[in-house]
Order: sequence, then structure tokens, then C-alpha cells
Amino acid sequence: MKKICRPLIVVLVSLVLPGKTSADEGMWLFNHPPAKLLQDKYGFNPTKEWLEHVQRSSVRFNSGGSGSFVSADGLVMTNHHVGTDCIQKLGNQLKKDFMKTGFQAKSHDEELKCVDEELNVLESIEDMTERVNAAVKPTMSPSEAQMARRAVINTIEKESLDKTKLRSDVITLYNGGAYHLYRYRKFTDLRMVFAPEKAAAFFGGDPDNFEYPRFDLDVCFFRVYENGKPARIEHYLRWSKEGCKDGELIFVSGHPGRTSRLDTIQYLEFRRDLTFPFALNLIRRREVLLKSYSDKSSENARRAEAELFSYQNSRKLLLGMLAGLQDPAIMNKKRADEKALRDKVAADAKLKESYGDAWDRVAASATAHKDIYFRHSLLEGERAAAGFNSQLFQKARMLVRLADESGKPNAERLREYGEAGLESLKQQLFSKAEIYSDLEIVKLGDSLGLMMEMLGADNDFVQKVLAGKSPQQRATELVLGSKLADADLRKKLADGGHKAIEESKDPMIELARLVDAPARAVRKTFEETVDEPKRQAYGSLAQARFGVYGKNIYPDATFTLRLAFGQVKGYTDGGQEIPWATTLGGTYKHAQAHGNKVPFELPGSWIERKDRMKLDTPYNFVSTADVIGGNSGSPVINRNGELVGIIFDGNIQSLVLDFIYTDEQARAVSVHSAGIIEALRSIYDAEVLAKELLGKK
Amino acid sequence: MKKICRPLIVVLVSLVLPGKTSADEGMWLFNHPPAKLLQDKYGFNPTKEWLEHVQRSSVRFNSGGSGSFVSADGLVMTNHHVGTDCIQKLGNQLKKDFMKTGFQAKSHDEELKCVDEELNVLESIEDMTERVNAAVKPTMSPSEAQMARRAVINTIEKESLDKTKLRSDVITLYNGGAYHLYRYRKFTDLRMVFAPEKAAAFFGGDPDNFEYPRFDLDVCFFRVYENGKPARIEHYLRWSKEGCKDGELIFVSGHPGRTSRLDTIQYLEFRRDLTFPFALNLIRRREVLLKSYSDKSSENARRAEAELFSYQNSRKLLLGMLAGLQDPAIMNKKRADEKALRDKVAADAKLKESYGDAWDRVAASATAHKDIYFRHSLLEGERAAAGFNSQLFQKARMLVRLADESGKPNAERLREYGEAGLESLKQQLFSKAEIYSDLEIVKLGDSLGLMMEMLGADNDFVQKVLAGKSPQQRATELVLGSKLADADLRKKLADGGHKAIEESKDPMIELARLVDAPARAVRKTFEETVDEPKRQAYGSLAQARFGVYGKNIYPDATFTLRLAFGQVKGYTDGGQEIPWATTLGGTYKHAQAHGNKVPFELPGSWIERKDRMKLDTPYNFVSTADVIGGNSGSPVINRNGELVGIIFDGNIQSLVLDFIYTDEQARAVSVHSAGIIEALRSIYDAEVLAKELLGKK
Repeated sequence: MKKICRPLIVVLVSLVLPGKTSADEGMWLFNHPPAKLLQDKYGFNPTKEWLEHVQRSSVRFNSGGSGSFVSADGLVMTNHHVGTDCIQKLGNQLKKDFMKTGFQAKSHDEELKCVDEELNVLESIEDMTERVNAAVKPTMSPSEAQMARRAVINTIEKESLDKTKLRSDVITLYNGGAYHLYRYRKFTDLRMVFAPEKAAAFFGGDPDNFEYPRFDLDVCFFRVYENGKPARIEHYLRWSKEGCKDGELIFVSGHPGRTSRLDTIQYLEFRRDLTFPFALNLIRRREVLLKSYSDKSSENARRAEAELFSYQNSRKLLLGMLAGLQDPAIMNKKRADEKALRDKVAADAKLKESYGDAWDRVAASATAHKDIYFRHSLLEGERAAAGFNSQLFQKARMLVRLADESGKPNAERLREYGEAGLESLKQQLFSKAEIYSDLEIVKLGDSLGLMMEMLGADNDFVQKVLAGKSPQQRATELVLGSKLADADLRKKLADGGHKAIEESKDPMIELARLVDAPARAVRKTFEETVDEPKRQAYGSLAQARFGVYGKNIYPDATFTLRLAFGQVKGYTDGGQEIPWATTLGGTYKHAQAHGNKVPFELPGSWIERKDRMKLDTPYNFVSTADVIGGNSGSPVINRNGELVGIIFDGNIQSLVLDFIYTDEQARAVSVHSAGIIEALRSIYDAEVLAKELLGKK
Repeated sequence: MKKICRPLIVVLVSLVLPGKTSADEGMWLFNHPPAKLLQDKYGFNPTKEWLEHVQRSSVRFNSGGSGSFVSADGLVMTNHHVGTDCIQKLGNQLKKDFMKTGFQAKSHDEELKCVDEELNVLESIEDMTERVNAAVKPTMSPSEAQMARRAVINTIEKESLDKTKLRSDVITLYNGGAYHLYRYRKFTDLRMVFAPEKAAAFFGGDPDNFEYPRFDLDVCFFRVYENGKPARIEHYLRWSKEGCKDGELIFVSGHPGRTSRLDTIQYLEFRRDLTFPFALNLIRRREVLLKSYSDKSSENARRAEAELFSYQNSRKLLLGMLAGLQDPAIMNKKRADEKALRDKVAADAKLKESYGDAWDRVAASATAHKDIYFRHSLLEGERAAAGFNSQLFQKARMLVRLADESGKPNAERLREYGEAGLESLKQQLFSKAEIYSDLEIVKLGDSLGLMMEMLGADNDFVQKVLAGKSPQQRATELVLGSKLADADLRKKLADGGHKAIEESKDPMIELARLVDAPARAVRKTFEETVDEPKRQAYGSLAQARFGVYGKNIYPDATFTLRLAFGQVKGYTDGGQEIPWATTLGGTYKHAQAHGNKVPFELPGSWIERKDRMKLDTPYNFVSTADVIGGNSGSPVINRNGELVGIIFDGNIQSLVLDFIYTDEQARAVSVHSAGIIEALRSIYDAEVLAKELLGKK
């Protein structure tokens, strides 16, 4: 699955009814759990205590995944591919290849402190919809509305932070239909406890990614510390040694990253025709670039490994999503759903009056987006500027903006520089994680070339950025000339405030200053002509949907905590029965069937200790739970609140879950709790860890 | 180098003067050799006999490379990467992995007949410029001019074929400044004699491609047969056992594929801004697609190997060329050259009157091309339709068009269906080479998806092609439904003529019929609004250039036989001296420096027999000869007409040779004749072959 996920061939199936949830559908809010559904289908009643326990046992990795507490002493389990960021940065720091060798701390003393990871635990949820909406008057222009909303959100977050000292985020739900305040307990001292070899965790590699049957030990363990000691944790998941069985009801508590099930047809078409093809071209471009860099030496390969993997994973995911959007059968189903809703709105005078034009307003925002799409992507982006693919540039931009934004009232700042988020931002900015200049040159040179291709060689802005050099030459002089790889220097510059930034002769700071005004300008256009109108239109659509179908619907995923549920269940593919689980022993057969060659080559540990292993132990299994990228590392939990597995992927048929739910073949893929314990004991001699998990310490 | 070639980082250098040739520049016509240059700089006079001998010893592989005769018994040497097409198809046919194992025939009986290769030897050249130009009247519309030129060219070729029985091609030179008739002796019975393991031939793989120092045994040997017996060859190159030395004058006789040195600035900009980025996105897309297919199993990898390699190679090449076009220093130099010529034309009333508007006319053709670029690329392409990336589709299109075109007078046919070329076309069409349906589905599905992205999902043509399916579903039904993988069936359909094609229910034939009218329409627009005006404009530019600088200039490369020359010579890079040659022994050090890992892992033969080898034998070497993709496999020849090496690549600094010559760092890379003999004897026990090469049989 890999933080975000999905794959390639589309099989169409029985799809859900408009506005209604069916079968095991839904990524539910913890403050609006699917109580009736669970009662009706499974006779299960999730109590307040059960929900609170599960909620507080769940953790979010800010680098993009989920996890859970699995002992009272702060032990956290997540996927190996979620932990990769930490594992690799630790390797860089200590000059070790933990991805290859794996890692195991035999005692607390041997646990290794991660370089820059942040972990969040959701403490409370408060509905702020009325307060936010009250601040945004219908008479305001998009720009005023944007400012007013940002101001009220920044204020709410700051008030909450001051009051509770907890990380406080106002979350937009239903694309603007609701605003909830999420308060998180935050851990920044995270230490690596155990990681298997990547060859075991990601056995089958890119070819097996998003496939099933699978044989992956995609787990690793960290421990959170407070004040230099393992944190005491009240809510953690007890380990189910037996694990789940075929047909059993299970729950998934995690952070699905993003779905688009409430998107209008025209917006889906906009994504199909513009944003997906652009993103895929960019991803393939970077995948080829990093592969070519990696092939030059094993040290290069090590440096680029995590980033290359993330592109390969995203490519497979986006290809699958795009294939779904290019499938007329799926799009026609979505069209029919939309028509049903529109007809119902049109038939209700009040709904029609208030929300009848919402679809057209969404479409208008997409049209406005089209006009600035490339410029916005290159200069600013929704996550990073595609024209400046460089960590040094990103740090420089943060420094420049931090200096500017810090001088403004909290309410007026750019979203990500609000008081409430500053600490997390600085954690990123001052990270001691290694930055490799050769890799930086390759990446920046390529992205400057992309910008030249897309904006044109004669474009004023491009010429200013390149300063008379070719993209490669310019990237070389910028990277070799900058001193920003030094975290202490960045700290010093940040402490020096506006003056220090203005006076800096660092070429990357100078570049970030040069780029800042045009980048802010296109961001402003984006926010005013695209983001704000779209948010308002989707807000209306949410109200229309509530009006027609009632409030009992779940919002699209937003990388915040959700509860999904489903059955442990195999499926049929091409006439063949795919059983609910694989076994540890099957791993050896799968390796053999692929000639034992990379990425199907098992690590030495697995080969040497095969005899010690109970080969019929369940290993990976599938369920109908409604999950998506971001759910990676989510605990799979039984009725008793015990941990029975950990989500790590979706199968190839789950690709369409981004915009439509199906449980005919789409399955979530997990590692089974029994398989984890058996592997820890027989292959890794990790008896201390196994005992801590089983509560036998 | 790989059939076409070039790389990544640009180093700017002393560039040539406009219109003049300098240093060792030039890809000269055999009927206009650089006699004065050679006399002045090297005191060498190439006699008529010397030129004829070299010309007739040179061969062209129609699949895209060069080679030479190296014995009286029809032995041909070329690069392993040029022979790859044959080697792989033979492997498919015989279920062997010759790329991995290599191959050696110990006697004629063991030589393996290639599946569908064609080899050409240039017998004569005749200037047809006047006859072609006379047929095209100034008063004709572009469409009429196009038809008239095609008619006269088809007629010349047909007359020549009838008269001489030789393959007869009218070649456009100087972008339309001259037309020469080339007559070729053709060989279609080609048999594999010797090929090393790919691990030795392409040691260093993609990372070392376009790099130097190098350590590659990039050679293989075939034998041409006539009437079932080894062909008797009058002109072949004697082997120089000593090979060349540092500083020596050498010649390269081969088929450079394409250069753009006479392109106008505005046309170079058109390529920089549109055609290169599009081609690179397409190549990266297919590279990722095939890599992902290959990673699934070793059999998949074997099936896609040659095609994947060709994308990797083209990507590295085009990236390098694009980097050159994105370098302001190079473009400014080209601008200055162009200005110098334009000023001289402007200063001469007659030249100005006749040719003064030629630059604007080239620019207008580029503008017209822009308008139809994507549609033309997808439906027709200059080599293949990018929207239908499928061998089955290509065969179906050939069948459909063959049936249509055969019914027309020769002079009116599409260029590639003229009588003179029919035999070669049928060799392709009826090839017994294996077609793999799984690979076809992957490729066709992706390219249909590309078409949907670029033309739009609602486009009429796209909807007709997809017939209500998603691209993947449609590709699957087309490939699995078609019987065209059967060569005998294709033969039968072709023999059945128009009626058989009209009646065929084969879904790929039906698709090709559906696509044909729109594809021909966009081709017609392309030919009339882009190709013909551009050809006329460049024809004028060539005349202008002749008028200013005289006739002693060479035309851009056209994949026809050319003579280059230069010195064996090292260079300086980043302050470091790079010597003229590497040694066989250096190979082992290079492998060790890269951890002996793929693609730096030497084959078993090299490891086992290291002790038998004279390690200080020269292996690969560099020279200043002016070569480019297509020159792969060209013989390197000394003053005495003896073979001293074989071209297989250009170094990373040679990237700019596409549009500008430099000899400061740009170098052609060759395998040394002494290294070849030593490897054949010590590693491969190929004593019989070595003796034949040395004329000791």
C-alpha cells in the first residue's frame, strides 16, 4: 500500500447506492461511528469505552502512515515501509545499511533515536463548524472569505494550543461541510526497536506491490520516549496470539490519506484529463531519474532508496486510479449516482434554491484551476514546488517564509506558518537528516529543466531563475554554493529573523527570495479562484447531500483518524478461489517460483532458520475493510479490542476505492498477528520483544 | 551509443565557424570526400580505389546500425547491441537465452539463420537533383509539389530496380538541397556466428552507457549467405592485428542516423520546446512500463530486454541532446552562426531575392507542425503511431495499406509502399519473429490510455477506437481476439488482396481499417503543411549556404553511408587526463570498483580465464571522428584500409554533436582490434574465428 496506494487492472463489480452506505463501506469518524450498520449486520455495539480505547491506542506518523501502541511502555508497531523514512535516515547518520541488514535492539539502551520523526495521538474531537461558518459571511469575496476562514481557524488552533498545550488542528470534513478541532498528544522522541530486512518486509518488491496472495513481514517497532524514558501509555492494544479467523468481524483504526468519493463527475474528469496525467508524467520522470542515479553505485542506490520506492509506489497507485477513471462502466455508475442526487435536489424547492448550482460551481473552480495548473504546480504546488525539486530549496523557502510570516499576526499567516503548527514545521526545518549534494544536483537540475519545458525557455521568470545557465549548470552552482545542508546554520538563520535572511548571500536563499513573490502570487490566485470557490461549492454539496440522505454518511478521507470495519474474507479471481490467508511456509514456495531472485530473494536469516519455523502459521490475510493509502500500519482489531493484524496494502482490485466502494474483489491486505510472533521468535530470536507484545514481561 | 546516441552534462568548448568545417569535423559523402582537409591536415590522399574499397566493405543493418565485411567468406562484424535484435529473436525461436549465454558456431553448420534481418551494401551513387527538381515546378501547390516529387522519386527508384535488380533509394540530402540515387546490394540470409555474453558486451550497462573510460566487448559476428552458401565477398577489410596507436589518423565508414546541424534556430527551439519533451515523456513512460513488466519474472525480462534497452538508450541520448538545446551558451553560438549566414545572404541581392525568406518559411512549417503535432504523433507518427504501440496493430496497418496501395500506380503510392521498397516491407510484414500477447496487451493498453489522455476521453475518434471499453479492456480484447501473430495468416491475407482485408473479421484488422482514414488525413495535412514547405525552405537554405560558403560542405546525417575521420586521442576532464585507451585488464578493476554487481558483474568465462589473458592489451579507445547514433558497428580503418577497431559509443561530452561539432572533449568510443582478437582467443577459445579474421584460414 505504501502510505498512499492502488494498482492497474479494473474489474467492475456491484457498486454502492448513491448516498447510502452498503456492505462494509466507510471510513467513519470516531465521533460518528457506524453504530447502526454494525448492530444490523454483525450484532456488535461499539461502546464509548471501546471506541475511546481504540482511538487512543492509534497513532499517526506525520511522515505519512498509521500505527498503534502495543505495550504500556510506549512500544509502537507500524509497517516497515512507514518506518522506512526513519530507518534510512538513521542509516545515513550511522553509515549503516539497516534496510539491508534489519535492526534489533536487545534492550532499551540499544534503541536508536530517530532523526526527525513526529507521532500524533488523537486525544479529543470538537465540532467547530458553526464557529467557522459564522466567521465567513455570504457577502464576502472569495479573498475575504479565505482570509476570514483562515483567521478563525488559526485563532481556534492557537486558543486550543494555549489552553491544552496539545497540537490542535482544525480539520475540514465533507470538503467543507464540517470543521472539527482535533487535539493531538505529540511524541518527537521516537526510537527504533526492531526492523526486519527489507528483503523480508517488502518481499516481492514492486512486482508484488498491490498484489495478493502476499508474503510480507511489513512491520517494524519503535518506542516513544518522554523525558529520556520510555513513555507510560494508558491505552494500548493487547496482542491476540491466535489472531483472526476466516469470516470474523474486524476493525481498522487508522488514517486514510485521501478519497474522492464525494467528487462531482466534472471534477473527476478534471483529474482524469489533467492532474493524473501530469502527476504520472512527473512521477515516471523522477522514477527514471532516480533509477538511473541509483544504478551507478550501491551507495547511490542506498541514498535514493526510500524516495525511489515512493515514486514506484505512487506510480502504480495513480496508474490504477487513472485506469478506473478511464473506465466508462465506472464513470457511468458515478454519473448515475450524481444524477440521482441532482434530481432529488431539483425536486426540492428549498434544496434547489440553496444548493442547486453547486455542481456548476465545482466545475467553474476546475476551469479556473486549469488556467494556472502548471504554473501553480511548478512554483508552489499543493505539497512542494515541482520546479524546485530540492531539499535545500525547500529549507531555503521555509526560512524565507518563516522570517516573513513570523512578523504577521497569527490570523493572517499562511496556513502552515500558524502558531499551532510552528513546532512541527521547525522539527522539519532543523532536521539533522543528511542532504546529499550529488543527489540534490540531479534532482534540482531535472526539475529546472521541467520548468523550462513547461513555462518556456523565453519565459521571464525562467530566465531569472536560470540566470543565463543551463538547468544542470544552474543546479550545480546552487547546490555546491549553498551551505544550507548544515542544520546549525539553518537554525542560526532562522533565529536571526528577517534581517539575517535579507542579508544572506547563500545562493539558495537568494533563489528562494527571488521565487517567493511570483510563487505567493500564483498561490493567492489559486486560493481565491480555485480553492475557496471549490470549498464553498463542496460545502453546499455536502449540505445538499445531508438534506437528501440525512447526516449518517462519512466524509472523504483526510489523513485523520477513522474507523473502518469488515470481514476476514477471500475472494474469487478469474474463476479461482483466493483463500483468506497465506502461510509463512508459502513464502519459500513463492520465492522458488520466482527463481529466488531479487526481489524474490529471501534474506539469509529466513533461509538458515526455515527449520525452526512453524510453516503453517497464518502470515498475510485479506478483509473487506474500507482502507486506502495512509492506512498503512493501521492496527486490525477484533471485537474485544485486541490486535489481530496490521494493514499494509490493498489488492489490485481495490484500486477504485479512491472514488467508489466495492467489496466483490477489493480487499485490504494485512500481516497476521500470529505470523508476526512466529517470525520474531523463529527467525529473529526476538524473544524479549515477543514477550512484551504478549504482555508476559 | 546504441543505434542512436547521446548523454547528460554539457561542457562548452571551442565551436566551429559558420559554414566552414574545422578540425576533424564532418560526415562526408563518399562521392564528395574531404580530400583537401585530409591533404592539408594529415597529408593523406584518399584515392578512388581506397574509397571504393572502404565503401563496399561497409554494410548497413536495416534494423538500425552499421557494420563491415571482415572476410572473403561473407563474415560481417557489428556491435553486439546492433545484433541484439537478431540474437534475441533467435533466442525466442529456439527458446534459448543467447543474451545471457552468448553464442559461438564452431563451423558453418552451426551458424544460426536470423529471423528477419536485412543487410545493405552501397554499390553506387548517382546525383538525381536536377531530375527531381525539374519535376517540381515553382507554381505547384504544396500538395502538387509533394505528389510530383513522390512520383518522380518512385519512378527513378522503380526504373533503377528494374534495370539493376538492386535496392534503389533516392536519398534527400541537405534537407532537400540535393537528391542522390543509392543502389544497394541486399542480403537477407544472415547467420549468427559469434556473440559474447551481454554481460561482457554491455559491461557497465545503462550507468556506463555514453561514458568513458569503458570496457566493453561490444562486438558480434554474422555471416551472409547466398543460395545457401557463404557469400563470396570481393571487398572486405583486412584485420590490423596491432590496431591503432595514440595520435594516429583513422577513418570511420558508417551510417550516422541523424544530425540537425543545418537546422535553423527557430527549428531547434521547436524541438527543444515541443518534440524533445514529448518524446522524452513517451520514452520514460514506456521505459517504466517495460521495466515494471520485466520485473515480474525472468521470462518477462527476456522478452522485453531489447525494447527496454532501446528506450533506456534513447532516453539518455535525448536527455543529453535536450540539455544541449537548453544551454544558452550553445544556443547563442548557433544564433551567431545563423546571423552570420543571414547577414551574408542579406548583403547579396541575388541570394536575398531567392532565399532571404527561407528562415521564416522554416519557422512557419514548425508553427503548422505544432497545430497537429499530438494528433499526428498518435495516429501516424514519423515511424509508428504512438497511440497504437502494438506489433499486431502495425502488421494490421501494413496489411490494410498494402491492399490499398497495391492497387494504385507506383508513382501515387505512399512512400513506403512504392515498388522499390516492397520486398523489404514484406520481409518485415511476414517475419516469423515471435509476438507475445501479454506484452502486446501491456503496450497497447498503455498507448490507448495515452491517446485518451492527449486527445480527450470525449473525443469522437477515441470513443470509436475504445468502443465503450477502458483502454486496458479494449487492448485485451483486441490482442486476444486477433490471429495476426500467425505469420502464415498474414501472408494469406496479403495474398488475398483488397477483398481478403475487407472481409476479415480479425479485430486488429478492423481497428486498422477504422483508424486508416483519420490517420491518412492527418498525414496528408502533415505532408502538405509541414513536411513539404519545410523541405522547400531547407532546400532554399541549402542553396543559400552553397552560395555563401561554396559546395564544400557535408549534409546532415540521413542513415546513409558517410566517411568520417579523426585522430586517436585522449582528452582532459575536470583537470584529469583521460588516456586514449583502456586495457583488457582494466575491466577486472572496473568490476571490482563497483562491487562486481550487475551491471558490473563479469560473466563466468571472464572470471575463469583471466589468467590466460594478456591483460595489457588495448581494449576500448577514443578518437575525434565525427560520429553519431547509427554509426554503431562502423569499422574504424587506418590509412592502409585495414580494420583497427569498431565504433560502439560516444562519450558524455559528445552529446552536442547532433547540432554542433566539437573535438575538445567529445569523443567516439571504439573497441580495439587487438582487444577483440585477444578476447576471442583467451576467453572464448574462438580460434577458428580469430584465424578467419587474421586471414590465416
